[in-house]
Amino acid sequence: MNPTDPPRPQLKIRRVHLDTGRENVVIISRQSRALRPEIFRGFSRVELRRGSKALLATLIITDDDTLAAHDEIGLSEPAFRRFAEPVGSLVTVTPATPPESLESVRAKIRGRTLSGPEIGAIINDLAHYRYSDMEIAAFLIGSASFITSDELLALTGAMASAGTQLAWPDPIVVDKHCIGGIPGNRTSMVVVPIVAAHGLPIPKTSSRAITSPAGTADTMEVLARVNVGVEEMKTIVAACKGCLIWGGHVNLSPADDILISVERPLSLDTREQMVASIMSKKIAAGSTNLLIDIPVGPTSKVTSATEAMRLRKLFEFVGDRFGRAVEVITTDGRQPIGNGIGPVLEANDVMAVLSNDPDAPRDLREKSLRLAAHLLEYDPQLRGGTGYNRARELLDNGAALKQMQKIIDAQGPSKCSTQLGSLTFDVKAPRDGIVSGIDCLRLNRLARTAGAPLDKGAGVRLFKKIGDRVDQGEPLYRVYAFDQPEHDLARNAAAADGGYAINGQESNGQQSRPGRAEP
Amino acid sequence: MNPTDPPRPQLKIRRVHLDTGRENVVIISRQSRALRPEIFRGFSRVELRRGSKALLATLIITDDDTLAAHDEIGLSEPAFRRFAEPVGSLVTVTPATPPESLESVRAKIRGRTLSGPEIGAIINDLAHYRYSDMEIAAFLIGSASFITSDELLALTGAMASAGTQLAWPDPIVVDKHCIGGIPGNRTSMVVVPIVAAHGLPIPKTSSRAITSPAGTADTMEVLARVNVGVEEMKTIVAACKGCLIWGGHVNLSPADDILISVERPLSLDTREQMVASIMSKKIAAGSTNLLIDIPVGPTSKVTSATEAMRLRKLFEFVGDRFGRAVEVITTDGRQPIGNGIGPVLEANDVMAVLSNDPDAPRDLREKSLRLAAHLLEYDPQLRGGTGYNRARELLDNGAALKQMQKIIDAQGPSKCSTQLGSLTFDVKAPRDGIVSGIDCLRLNRLARTAGAPLDKGAGVRLFKKIGDRVDQGEPLYRVYAFDQPEHDLARNAAAADGGYAINGQESNGQQSRPGRAEP
Repeated sequence: MNPTDPPRPQLKIRRVHLDTGRENVVIISRQSRALRPEIFRGFSRVELRRGSKALLATLIITDDDTLAAHDEIGLSEPAFRRFAEPVGSLVTVTPATPPESLESVRAKIRGRTLSGPEIGAIINDLAHYRYSDMEIAAFLIGSASFITSDELLALTGAMASAGTQLAWPDPIVVDKHCIGGIPGNRTSMVVVPIVAAHGLPIPKTSSRAITSPAGTADTMEVLARVNVGVEEMKTIVAACKGCLIWGGHVNLSPADDILISVERPLSLDTREQMVASIMSKKIAAGSTNLLIDIPVGPTSKVTSATEAMRLRKLFEFVGDRFGRAVEVITTDGRQPIGNGIGPVLEANDVMAVLSNDPDAPRDLREKSLRLAAHLLEYDPQLRGGTGYNRARELLDNGAALKQMQKIIDAQGPSKCSTQLGSLTFDVKAPRDGIVSGIDCLRLNRLARTAGAPLDKGAGVRLFKKIGDRVDQGEPLYRVYAFDQPEHDLARNAAAADGGYAINGQESNGQQSRPGRAEP
Repeated sequence: MNPTDPPRPQLKIRRVHLDTGRENVVIISRQSRALRPEIFRGFSRVELRRGSKALLATLIITDDDTLAAHDEIGLSEPAFRRFAEPVGSLVTVTPATPPESLESVRAKIRGRTLSGPEIGAIINDLAHYRYSDMEIAAFLIGSASFITSDELLALTGAMASAGTQLAWPDPIVVDKHCIGGIPGNRTSMVVVPIVAAHGLPIPKTSSRAITSPAGTADTMEVLARVNVGVEEMKTIVAACKGCLIWGGHVNLSPADDILISVERPLSLDTREQMVASIMSKKIAAGSTNLLIDIPVGPTSKVTSATEAMRLRKLFEFVGDRFGRAVEVITTDGRQPIGNGIGPVLEANDVMAVLSNDPDAPRDLREKSLRLAAHLLEYDPQLRGGTGYNRARELLDNGAALKQMQKIIDAQGPSKCSTQLGSLTFDVKAPRDGIVSGIDCLRLNRLARTAGAPLDKGAGVRLFKKIGDRVDQGEPLYRVYAFDQPEHDLARNAAAADGGYAINGQESNGQQSRPGRAEP
């Protein structure tokens, strides 16, 4: 026995059916002599030890014997899973010593620049769930005000190596990423089949919606299973050259997932953190050639060309240092892409484009072709400048659709209904004129209020886009919901602000919101 | 019914015996249709509503019907207490909209200066438990790097008016505060009886130890009950002119208590936050004349005269703006004050000084007299410069001791044992020489490891102070513990670093730790 570690009363592990998300939570009895709970307070941090295994957790104290008797410690589901010791095993519990790397976080808050090893230690502790929520927040905010280029590189590298690292047999592996914020922007689901049909590997993992009405993974799930693990992903890519799966089971950058889970509720979105987050996942995914799409518009994430340029430089800088070819393009982010917002509506748009349906949204088709063209240009076999024609050829001749079917078959059938919500209402033009602006944030929120992404068939379907002429009373868009409360909430939200500007009441940044539409 | 608030399925309140400290936690069933828990994740934030009442809480999802059935919502003890609605009442639950004031926190993180009303809104939301831990951390860190004088004033004022505000009939109400960090420094327990015996009101509230081996409230608790509420406090002060109670039941600056509960685990201690914290409590306590004690020493909180001067200016500035007379003095913080560290040992020192015991620690007596002298000078009746003599007179003639007995009687008897821990060991001088340094941090930690403040009679008793001659093998101090594990841990800690420097191996800031003493 370690001389600095004398015997301490031990507690028996009990499994408690509480889902506490990313946080490890444990429960002890106020009567527990072993723990002397009076030195602990509710929500203080404790350390569990069994042999050489240790787990940091947040403590809840109970007066209810059915949760934890005096000789027991109740482990919430995440804590039980991560500690991975059987029920009834004995553990010691002590007040947690904060991870040593927290000293670097404090230094960062005070304004010091961190070294590579310091950042590596922080990310390693983060990825092993050793940081509490507030410690994660401390790191994020401490690095929000200023991080150097070297710190950005160290952060990206540390995050990329904290989880699964994929390697592919092909010399060129392409990938695309959109920084997000534009409703309905499901280009990946058109680009992946085109590029894969050409024969370039494009193993795409996507996220689910956190604050938006649909992530690519949510929309793809309408067509196929997306909960796919690493080994299966490799098989699918070997067979189809591409895939469209959820990143959640692949664990490409666990530290990033944890950072995002704190970043989002705090709405902390800094350039450097965004670049480190995206690039760490792409590096871990083994992509060699990347295309980054930055939509620019008054209600998009990036609102100016200057800001887009700054982001571009950061992506290029990190890409160069990690030996990845990175191309960054800015695209029109003034309004939604396609007509649907919400998983089923977006999936319908995607399939219409792939099927060359004459009613398919032209903007989704054109943007997808443009992105696919850039990726195809990475193929050394292809004559320079012919990427766009090749992409259009693969789309028009049905090869992309066939490839999508192949990918869908390989991933397995979807279990989701494709039905649209039966409760609908239309939002109509308040006056004659030309649509002069559409508020992306507002429409995202509206689709979410209506029930997306949980209700796959809830959302918004646009009838009019910027530049379209409308008559007073003509429908601008239709909202779909399944439940009366969601329907009513969405209706009230649309009545308060419909998100459309008609005629010159252009939404131009600061001074005016788009005109009100009446539902 | 509000048109923007359509009927939503409601859940029945259930009380769950979980103590989650400052955090409101609620539990819902994964099966709960009303909540659609799939849109919520574990540890996301939710809002409970019943009529006009609302509560923000952190969500835990359960698969265990005994915690929350599908039509129930389990409220942890703090949530149940704060929401204050009966078991079985119906509530609606929605994803929480973060408090609006969080927008100001984000602005602060981005470097903007906040207005008075913005800071007021933040503090108001904080005091009403609307901030999650990570949101509190965001505010603390955002204001850690820089806050203006106006922001400091706004913060102090907002915190002072967020809780109980005491008013006293007397024109002059004095108070003292030490910024802490020095083991054994229980001057308040000598100063209060002296000043009260003279007739100046000194309604003193103190804190319990959070990271130290004893707060004044913990030590006073050895002699009298300290869990006293506002009304009782007023009666005691009316009768005795002074009191020595725990601040926890008086609720003078609830926002500050919440900030501290996050500041401490993160070890974020900025000057401005310290000043706002202390001054808000003193202003709310209705003190008109204040004395602030800043101990300066190499292992004290404040390590240099420059730093002490900066702090002094801040205290004076805030005091002036709020119309309070503030005097700030720096004192010798190179070593512990008195001989005992830990509640019982410290209480023994205090009573020895008050009883004029010839063995009473001289440093505690002298420092207390000096502080009392400063406070007595605030009495307009007293001839200038006679404060020290008056203080000594009241101590020497037994008036202070009598006053202390009166205060103890008014507060009520203590329920604590005054026994010292029966497991002891001595730490001895490793060589002949003169004690040249004592590490305050180290001795605080040692007393805490031995069991203080939970075990009132655990702690450290010093036999030697700086300047004392010692022979090799002569005891430097004795450690008291009740339980073998604590005893052994303390023994090992003392063996690793005894905290004393003998002979020139002076602990002078950076370059050397005090010499090792052998246990």
